[in-house]
Amino acid sequence: MTKPQHEPPRIVLLGAGRLASHLLYALIRQPEAGQVVQIYSRSQASLDSLLAEAGLDLAQTTDLGQLYADADIYLFALTDTALTEVWTALEGQTSGLWVHTSGATSLEACLQHHPRAAVLYPLQTFSRERAAQGSYFPFYIEASDAEALSHVRQLAELLGQEVHEASSQQRLILHLGAVLACNFSNYLILEAEELLQRHGLPTKALLPLLDELLHKLHQLPARSALTGPAARGDLATLARHEALLADEPQLQQLYHSLSQRILELSTH
Amino acid sequence: MTKPQHEPPRIVLLGAGRLASHLLYALIRQPEAGQVVQIYSRSQASLDSLLAEAGLDLAQTTDLGQLYADADIYLFALTDTALTEVWTALEGQTSGLWVHTSGATSLEACLQHHPRAAVLYPLQTFSRERAAQGSYFPFYIEASDAEALSHVRQLAELLGQEVHEASSQQRLILHLGAVLACNFSNYLILEAEELLQRHGLPTKALLPLLDELLHKLHQLPARSALTGPAARGDLATLARHEALLADEPQLQQLYHSLSQRILELSTH
Repeated sequence: MTKPQHEPPRIVLLGAGRLASHLLYALIRQPEAGQVVQIYSRSQASLDSLLAEAGLDLAQTTDLGQLYADADIYLFALTDTALTEVWTALEGQTSGLWVHTSGATSLEACLQHHPRAAVLYPLQTFSRERAAQGSYFPFYIEASDAEALSHVRQLAELLGQEVHEASSQQRLILHLGAVLACNFSNYLILEAEELLQRHGLPTKALLPLLDELLHKLHQLPARSALTGPAARGDLATLARHEALLADEPQLQQLYHSLSQRILELSTH
Repeated sequence: MTKPQHEPPRIVLLGAGRLASHLLYALIRQPEAGQVVQIYSRSQASLDSLLAEAGLDLAQTTDLGQLYADADIYLFALTDTALTEVWTALEGQTSGLWVHTSGATSLEACLQHHPRAAVLYPLQTFSRERAAQGSYFPFYIEASDAEALSHVRQLAELLGQEVHEASSQQRLILHLGAVLACNFSNYLILEAEELLQRHGLPTKALLPLLDELLHKLHQLPARSALTGPAARGDLATLARHEALLADEPQLQQLYHSLSQRILELSTH
């Protein structure tokens, strides 16, 4: 008997970290996208805390040998490092579609362990604190065949706000772009917050500036939005700032390198 | 005859760049804050374009010798490099209060040229395109005496949304923080946009990620918001990203240095 078209796929979710928690909450909100029938994590503590927080009583395991063999979809929300290990252990154990969520891992890497696979990559930054509220999910998808693509597209359209196809190479570029634009900015904002704190200033004093920057970036290319002493070629101010960082040679070196790059961009 | 308390101060605005344009529009919107009676810029083209855009017919000059000598406030919105030059030329020529708007220039530097001075520093990033719409102005003020402080506070309260007192040293730290958090982030987002563009991806694909990052930064310390391969200690992904940047050794070196800093932060 074939399954009726409207029945949601039965999903085994692998992972209990930030991304897994966002996917779990999204699947709870959109039951037609899929039914999570089991959740796996290496860490019992992560499973306990996620399920308690979500108020769910769900089949769970820390043992890959106990994974249901007959789910429709195995949704991998593990770190890149864990993926290969878990995939190797699961080879030949399941017949459903394997769907991974990693920006930096190719579809091909997954197909080396399982014949039907897809990618559901959310280009987003996830914090545990924000999982229950829900995030804006732009999904980039890829699959080994047309049927797998159709399945992952349906999942993406039900869970997310934007769905694009992207090759593994494009996904890696998007992931690198995300690190440059988001993680590194976050790091520099961290340095700024802690600098202000060390000098008795409110750590969030720069938020209006960041709000305005983002507002500009919605309207202009980042190149047109660029301001500041390096963009103006104001070497005296650059020297004054570098002198302030004398006690932190690594941050001082970063300040210098970033300013040099901006100076070069701005004179061309 | 003393001037009645409610008469707005007569202001000479020096500068016709991004910040000057924002201040001019803010003064037009809040006439009780002050009346711009004359505007100076070294560049006639900048004056023409600003006044045409704002639809103003205002006394203007490119000659410091033609500056009105009897204004209440001289509001300097010039680059740090131009300030010293203009202040030297204006020494002894005016009796009103000098107000500068620079983060990196001390009050003391201004007082070397004029006996009564104040600082009105907007901790914001300004684009010409956004001047007419208006920006959120958090002002940091400082003055040479109580009366000057009261004048600059009044100006700040009428033009801005937040007014704080800050010493010249605190202002320099805020300015450095703004460069780290805002200019350097802007630069890294620029690199990400252009990387995506070179690979045929939409340059604004990362905006949902940046929106979410900013949302998090309104709720959490930047240190708690930090995610990504370096924060996870995922050395394999870092190596994959660095390999993608082989054609751009400077950006590759920056990627490496920023990742190292995040790795160090995340293991302590």
